[in-house]
Amino acid sequence: MSARRPPIAFQGERGAYSEHAIRHWFTREVRALPLAEFGAVFEAVLTGKARFGMVPMENSLTGSIHENYDLLLQYPDIRIVGEQKIRIEHNLIARADARMEDIRRVFSHPQGLAQCGRFLDAHPTWERVAYADTAGAVRYVAELGSRENAAIASEDAARVYGLSVLKPGIETNVQNYTRFFVIAREEQELPPEAAARKPGKASLCFAVVDEPGALFKALQVLAVRGLNMKKLESRPIHGKPWEYLFYVDVNIPSDQALFSQCMEELKNVSEDLRVLGTYRG
Amino acid sequence: MSARRPPIAFQGERGAYSEHAIRHWFTREVRALPLAEFGAVFEAVLTGKARFGMVPMENSLTGSIHENYDLLLQYPDIRIVGEQKIRIEHNLIARADARMEDIRRVFSHPQGLAQCGRFLDAHPTWERVAYADTAGAVRYVAELGSRENAAIASEDAARVYGLSVLKPGIETNVQNYTRFFVIAREEQELPPEAAARKPGKASLCFAVVDEPGALFKALQVLAVRGLNMKKLESRPIHGKPWEYLFYVDVNIPSDQALFSQCMEELKNVSEDLRVLGTYRG
Repeated sequence: MSARRPPIAFQGERGAYSEHAIRHWFTREVRALPLAEFGAVFEAVLTGKARFGMVPMENSLTGSIHENYDLLLQYPDIRIVGEQKIRIEHNLIARADARMEDIRRVFSHPQGLAQCGRFLDAHPTWERVAYADTAGAVRYVAELGSRENAAIASEDAARVYGLSVLKPGIETNVQNYTRFFVIAREEQELPPEAAARKPGKASLCFAVVDEPGALFKALQVLAVRGLNMKKLESRPIHGKPWEYLFYVDVNIPSDQALFSQCMEELKNVSEDLRVLGTYRG
Repeated sequence: MSARRPPIAFQGERGAYSEHAIRHWFTREVRALPLAEFGAVFEAVLTGKARFGMVPMENSLTGSIHENYDLLLQYPDIRIVGEQKIRIEHNLIARADARMEDIRRVFSHPQGLAQCGRFLDAHPTWERVAYADTAGAVRYVAELGSRENAAIASEDAARVYGLSVLKPGIETNVQNYTRFFVIAREEQELPPEAAARKPGKASLCFAVVDEPGALFKALQVLAVRGLNMKKLESRPIHGKPWEYLFYVDVNIPSDQALFSQCMEELKNVSEDLRVLGTYRG
C-alpha cells in the first residue's frame, strides 16, 4: 500500500545530493521522483503528484539558492515542514577498472569542479568539463564507458550508475554542508515520526516600509520576544528597486501562543508577513 | 597628460553596462580597460594597472552579485569610493539592413534572454543562444555578419560593434537597475569632482558571535545612532557552517566624529568589523 503513495520530489538526477537528503529525513522507505527543475518540484507538490519535495536552500560555502527562496513566495499554498543538513563529500568516480593514470577528463557541476580545485590543480593535464549536475555527470561518464573519463559527485551517484569511487573526499574545504527544506502542501499530513517532533524553528518572510529604522523595528519585535535570529537574507522586490524582502529564520519558543502573539506584533511593523513554515531545526 | 594616466577597469567586453557606468560616474573623459574576470578588475586596481574599477554589486531584479562582495573582503587594501546606478535597457541589435522577419537566432547573456522573456515569447521560432556577456554577444553577431542573427544588449554595445538597434526597450520589467561600486586603492586620490562630494553612505561588513541576540545588538548600535540601514545582506563564512558575514549599507551623519564613534561601538559588539568605504550615495 505504501508503494502506491505519491513519491518525494527532488531536482536533479538519481543519486543527487537531494535524493541523499530524502533518505536521511524520511525514516521509512520512500520513493523519490527526480525532476529537471526546482519549479517542477514545487508544482508536483502543489498538484499532489508528490507528497513532499526536498529542495536545497543554502550551501555553507556558496550561500543561498535564491531561486528556491523565490519559489517559496510564488507558491503560497506550500509550506516548509522540515529541515535536513547534509555534508557534501565529493568523490572522484570512474569505472571500477580505471586507475588514476587513465583519467583524461573530469565531468561535474561547475560548483563541484570549483570545490575540488586543489585536487584538480594537482592533475593539471586533466580536462575539466562542466555538466548540469553532479549525478548527471556520473550517468554520462557511465554511458561513455571509457576508463579515461571521471566524474565528481556523491558515493550514492557512483552506486546508482554502477561506477566506483576512485578517490573519496577530494573537496578542498571539508566544511561543506547543504541545508535542505522539506516542503508540502498546506493540508498534507506529516509522517508520524515527523509529526511527533516539536517545531523549534520558523522561517519568516516580510517587507518593511522604506523609512528610517523600519527594518530595525521589525527585528526588535523578534529580539524582545527572545526569538533568536539564525539567518537573515534579503532579496530584491521586483518593480521596487532598492526595496527588499527579508527572509529570517528564528528559534521559536515552545509556547505556541507566544509565537502567535509575536507574529501579530511583527505584522504591525512589517508588510506582507508570511510564516513559511515551522519545523524541527 | 591625462591620456597617460592608468585607465578605469571593468569586467566584460567593450560596450558592457559596466563601461556605461564608467561614462556616467566620471565627468571627464577616461580610458576604460575591459578585463575578463571580476577578480582581474580588483587585481588591476591593487597593482595600479588601473586607477579605479567599476564593478556591479546588485541588480534590482536578480539580487546581489556575491562574487564581488566576496572580492571586497579578499582585497582589504581596496575601498569603495563611489556608487553609480544605471537603468538596464535591453535592445534587439542586428545589422542595419536586417528586418524583424530576417531574424532566426538571438544571442545574449542568460539573464539578458530571461529579462526579455515576454518579447522573445512573441517570436517563438527564434532560437535563443546563451552567451558569456551581452556586449560579447553583439561583437559575435557582428563577426557572423548575417542578417539572421541578433543580440540583446545596450545601445552602447550596438554602437561599439557597428550594429543597429532593431527594437529598443524589449525588457519585460522596466524597473531594471544595476548598482555599481567604484573601487580604488586606499591611497588613490579621487577625481576633484568626486573628492568635493560629501559622503552620505557607508558600506560595512562584520560578523557576530554565535549567540542569541548578537546580530540584533550590532544593528541596535546603528539604529540608536540614527544610521539608517539601506541594505542588509548575509554571506556564509567559509569553514564556519551556518555562521554569516553581514554586509550593511547605512546612511551616515555629516558629522564624521559621530560616525567614527558609532563604528567604535559597533566594534565592541561585532567581530572583524570593516568599513568597506564611505561615498556619496
